[in-house]
Amino acid sequence: MSARAEGRRIAILAADGFEESELFEPKSALEDAGAEVHVISLNTGEIEANRHRETGKTIPVNDVLGNAKAERFDALVIPGGLFSPDALRINDDVKSFVRDFFAQKKPVAAICHGPQILIDADVVKGRTLTSVEAIRTDLANAGAKVVDEAVVVDEGLVTSRTPKDLEAFCAKLVEEVCEGQHAAQAQSV
Amino acid sequence: MSARAEGRRIAILAADGFEESELFEPKSALEDAGAEVHVISLNTGEIEANRHRETGKTIPVNDVLGNAKAERFDALVIPGGLFSPDALRINDDVKSFVRDFFAQKKPVAAICHGPQILIDADVVKGRTLTSVEAIRTDLANAGAKVVDEAVVVDEGLVTSRTPKDLEAFCAKLVEEVCEGQHAAQAQSV
Repeated sequence: MSARAEGRRIAILAADGFEESELFEPKSALEDAGAEVHVISLNTGEIEANRHRETGKTIPVNDVLGNAKAERFDALVIPGGLFSPDALRINDDVKSFVRDFFAQKKPVAAICHGPQILIDADVVKGRTLTSVEAIRTDLANAGAKVVDEAVVVDEGLVTSRTPKDLEAFCAKLVEEVCEGQHAAQAQSV
Repeated sequence: MSARAEGRRIAILAADGFEESELFEPKSALEDAGAEVHVISLNTGEIEANRHRETGKTIPVNDVLGNAKAERFDALVIPGGLFSPDALRINDDVKSFVRDFFAQKKPVAAICHGPQILIDADVVKGRTLTSVEAIRTDLANAGAKVVDEAVVVDEGLVTSRTPKDLEAFCAKLVEEVCEGQHAAQAQSV
């Protein structure tokens, strides 16, 4: 497969305790497609993964919330893990950062517990999505239409349930990022 | 302080990844007051605590869901931690076990992420309660009136925010368990 996302800049939003595979696999898939991936977090330095309840690998933070702006990115990826969305969802800079991607109609992809952040950003009402089973009542109560599928795409919002869905999640994510590019190219004609 | 909860049987509902202090401190406070405390979980054996992202102590499980019945207990305690409520809230036996305590008007105490289980048990509508900040939007969306206080008591429902509130949480929990006893004694007159 040729690189189809050259020049696209993607933000991955995570904090300590993100689920390891849910950050590293989408990052690899996007980079393999030619995109430039930036890790955005609450603080400078590095963040440490979880592999479910065990701690995992670390990754450097490229930019911090408050400084990072949605305008400078073409898409947003939100990994799960229990601690990362839990720490991020209460932060006002997170909420406005996420809302801006929706306002700018850019692709947003969230997996597992990642959609918890979409609840606090107040962007799920009327949207069709999926997630890890544990947070589905919360998503439904927030106004989402929740389904149980490996990957769901609803007008640029890509969601999946668990690490088992990563292959389907990454494929749809790359596809949406490339569609974003196509739309931008169309506008520039 | 003399033991005021002799003969009371209390269920603590937890799974792997419960926040260590949020199980052990209420357990000690109840036992110091004379109560008999049973740990109820998904499987036999033992469960292991977290201390935030680190793993902590283990504790034996006394009875499993499906077998344990609310009728045999005088009150229910639900510790937080991110993994324990996350694993428990999707389980049908958990939901009916929790609902039965409410139906039987017995004290229920939940701290931190513990109230997530109350959302899936569908018992928070119209109730006043508190929790860790991260899940407050979910509780409000489920119909609860959410406040930010160290401990809240609403007709036998005792809730607190984080481990920092444990002293106030344990005091109110023991008080409610003893009130339950008083009510029972009054009925038997």
